[in-house]
Amino acid sequence: MTLDPGAGARQAPAQVASAPLHHRIGRFEPELGGALSDVTLAYETWGELDEFGENAVLIVHALTGDTHAAGKPDSSYRRGGWWEPMVGPGRAIDSEQNFVVCSNVLGGCYGSTGPSSIDPESGRPYAMRFPVLTIRDMVRAQKRLLDDLGVKRLRLVIGGSIGGQQALEWAVEFPAFVEKAVPIAATNALGPQGLGMSELGRRAIMADPDWQNGDYYGSGSFPQNGLAIARMAGMMTYQSAAGQWERFGRRPASRPALYDEFGGRFEIESYLHYQGRDLVGRFDANSYLYLSRAMDLYDVAAGYESEEVAYSRIEGEVLFVGISSDWLFPPHEVRATAERARGTGADVRYVEIDSLSGHDAFLKDWDEVRAAISTFVRPEADG
Amino acid sequence: MTLDPGAGARQAPAQVASAPLHHRIGRFEPELGGALSDVTLAYETWGELDEFGENAVLIVHALTGDTHAAGKPDSSYRRGGWWEPMVGPGRAIDSEQNFVVCSNVLGGCYGSTGPSSIDPESGRPYAMRFPVLTIRDMVRAQKRLLDDLGVKRLRLVIGGSIGGQQALEWAVEFPAFVEKAVPIAATNALGPQGLGMSELGRRAIMADPDWQNGDYYGSGSFPQNGLAIARMAGMMTYQSAAGQWERFGRRPASRPALYDEFGGRFEIESYLHYQGRDLVGRFDANSYLYLSRAMDLYDVAAGYESEEVAYSRIEGEVLFVGISSDWLFPPHEVRATAERARGTGADVRYVEIDSLSGHDAFLKDWDEVRAAISTFVRPEADG
Repeated sequence: MTLDPGAGARQAPAQVASAPLHHRIGRFEPELGGALSDVTLAYETWGELDEFGENAVLIVHALTGDTHAAGKPDSSYRRGGWWEPMVGPGRAIDSEQNFVVCSNVLGGCYGSTGPSSIDPESGRPYAMRFPVLTIRDMVRAQKRLLDDLGVKRLRLVIGGSIGGQQALEWAVEFPAFVEKAVPIAATNALGPQGLGMSELGRRAIMADPDWQNGDYYGSGSFPQNGLAIARMAGMMTYQSAAGQWERFGRRPASRPALYDEFGGRFEIESYLHYQGRDLVGRFDANSYLYLSRAMDLYDVAAGYESEEVAYSRIEGEVLFVGISSDWLFPPHEVRATAERARGTGADVRYVEIDSLSGHDAFLKDWDEVRAAISTFVRPEADG
Repeated sequence: MTLDPGAGARQAPAQVASAPLHHRIGRFEPELGGALSDVTLAYETWGELDEFGENAVLIVHALTGDTHAAGKPDSSYRRGGWWEPMVGPGRAIDSEQNFVVCSNVLGGCYGSTGPSSIDPESGRPYAMRFPVLTIRDMVRAQKRLLDDLGVKRLRLVIGGSIGGQQALEWAVEFPAFVEKAVPIAATNALGPQGLGMSELGRRAIMADPDWQNGDYYGSGSFPQNGLAIARMAGMMTYQSAAGQWERFGRRPASRPALYDEFGGRFEIESYLHYQGRDLVGRFDANSYLYLSRAMDLYDVAAGYESEEVAYSRIEGEVLFVGISSDWLFPPHEVRATAERARGTGADVRYVEIDSLSGHDAFLKDWDEVRAAISTFVRPEADG
C-alpha cells in the first residue's frame, strides 16, 4: 500500500492542545440576578484566526461535555475529542479554513467558573451560592471570550442539546455577529417530559446526604449516588426505545454487577449503573444542577414580547437539526420551532436525521450528522 | 325532577366493605426460590358467587393499587375505589351478575403478605429477606385464594400494567380456569426503556440512607426521599409527552414548593413532588422494590420452550388493550404480543384506546376503557 501524501494530510488528526487554555473575562452579572466578580472560561482552539477575525467557528458542548471537541485520545483526554470525527483539517468543521473554538460553559466544571470554583469574595467554593444561570448568560460569557480573542464575527456556531439551545440563542442575542447557526436536537423551550426527567435527577442529587446542601467540597464525600441516579435519568432521555431494544433488549448483564440486590441483572441496568459511575468520576454534582436548570429555564422568548419577536431579530442563517427518535427534544417540536422562526422571515431551514440513537445521535451517528450539516456549513465543498 | 327507582337502582354505588377481608392461604413457595411459611391475602368482593362457583370476575390492581377497586369515598378509603366507574351494578364489571374479587398482590403492602409482614420464623419483618417474586407467583397465590372462596372458574380476569401482566399470565398458567382475560397496557415482557426507568427508581430507594438495607421498619425512619424519586420516575412513564404538554406545559407551579432550591418551579415539577410525597404516605418502599422487580422480570415465555408454546396453552378468550400514547407498554408492542398469541391459534383480539393520558389511561379515561372492553366482557349487554 502506498501512501498518498495529499490524502494523508487531509486525514491527519487535528492539532490539539493537551489541556484547555484559560481566559479571564472578569466580572459577570447573570440575567436573573447575583454577580460573579471574576469569571474565567476554559477553551481550546483549532486552526488560525484570519486577519479580519471573521473565520471563527464556535462549537458548543452538551450538558456534561468539555472544551475538548477534537483530538485523538491522549494522556489528558483518554477518550479523545467528543466531536473528533467532525472537526479537523478537511472535516465538516474544517480547522484549515476556520479558527475553531470550543469553550467550557459558564457554570461548568471543566475549567470555567462554576459552583465548584472559589468565590474570591469568600475564599471558599460557591456551591449553591452560585447564581442561577441561563442559556443567555452562557452565550454572553462566550461572547466576551470571543471578543477578547479578536473574533469579529462567527462564521458558524453549532452544538447539540443544551449546546443547541446556545446556538439558537447566539443567533437571537447577537444577530449581527452570527453568520450561521446550527442548533441540533434543541427547540425554543424544553417540554414538560424533559423538565420532569431533569427534576428527578436533581432531586436525587439533593436528596443524597453527601450533597450537604452543596457544600461537599473538601468534605471528603461527594453525592455519588445522587449524581449517578441523575445520570441514569439523563441517559434514559438520550436514547430511544427502539434503539434500546436493538442495543440492550432484555439481555442479561454482560459485566459484573455494581449493586448486589435482586440477583440477575439486565444489560440495560448494568449499562446505566456504569454510566452513572463514570459521570461520578468526571463531573461536579452542583454543576449538574445548575446546567440542567439552565436547560429547563431556556425559553427563546424570555425577555421579548413573544417568541416571534425573538426570531425576528435573527440576521444570519439557521439550520435546525432534528433527530427522528429523540424524545428529549422530539423532532416534531424541533421542526415546529424552525417553522415558527421561518414564519417571521428569518432564513431558517430544518433537516432531520433518521436514526435510532435518540437524542445522542449527534454524538455518535457521524455520517448522518455530517450529511445533515455539510452543505449548510461548507457550501464551498459541494459539487 | 322525579327519580326513576329502576334507574336509581342501576346507579346505586356498589356495596363495599369498608376494609379488606383477609384470608390465609398458608405456605407458599415462590418459583425462583425461598419459601413463605404462612401467606395471607387481603381482598374485597362485590356481588354474590353463584351456586356453581362460575360467575367470578377477578380485578387485578396496578403497581401501587389496593383491594379497593370499587366504592365511594368513605372514612377508610378517602379516594373511593380506584376503578369505581367500571365496577358495580349495571356497570362494565357488573356486580349484579358477577362475584367480583380484587385481592392485594402477594408482596404488596395493603394487607397481603409482603416485605413489611412479620416473618413467623424470625418474628421480625421480612424486609429484603423476602424472596424475589414473579408475576406467576402472584397469580398462583390469587388462585389459591379463589379456590378457597369456592370459585371454580373465572368469567373474566382484568387489569392494567402489572395487573395486565397478571391477567395474561392467568390465561397461560390456568388455561382451563379462565374464560376471558383482558390484559390492558401490558405485553409479554417489559422493554429496556421500562426496565431502565424501573431500575433508577429502585436505585433511588436503595441509595437513601434511611432505607437501611431494607430494615427501616420500627426504626422511626423511612426512605421517603428515595421512594418519592422512584414515584417521580414511575409517573413519568405513566404519562405521555403530548398529555403532559396539555396538562402542564411549561406553566409555573400553582402550589407551594415542597423544595426550596432554584426559585421558580414548573407545574410538572410541583406535580411530581406532590405525587412523590403522596406515595410516601401510603406505600411501603420495599414492596415497591419487589413489585417493580416482578414487573421487570415478567416474561410470558419463562419456563416454556418459547413464547408461542406459552400462548398455545390458552383456552379462553383474550382481549389485549393498548393505549395509543403509552410509552411504558407502547401500543405497537401490545399489538405485536396479541398478534404473536393469535398466531398460535389462541382466541385473541386487540383493541386500542386513543388517548393522550399515556399508560395511566386505564385509570382515568373511563368512557374509552368502557368502550374498549364492554362488548368483550358483557356481550349480553349489546344490541
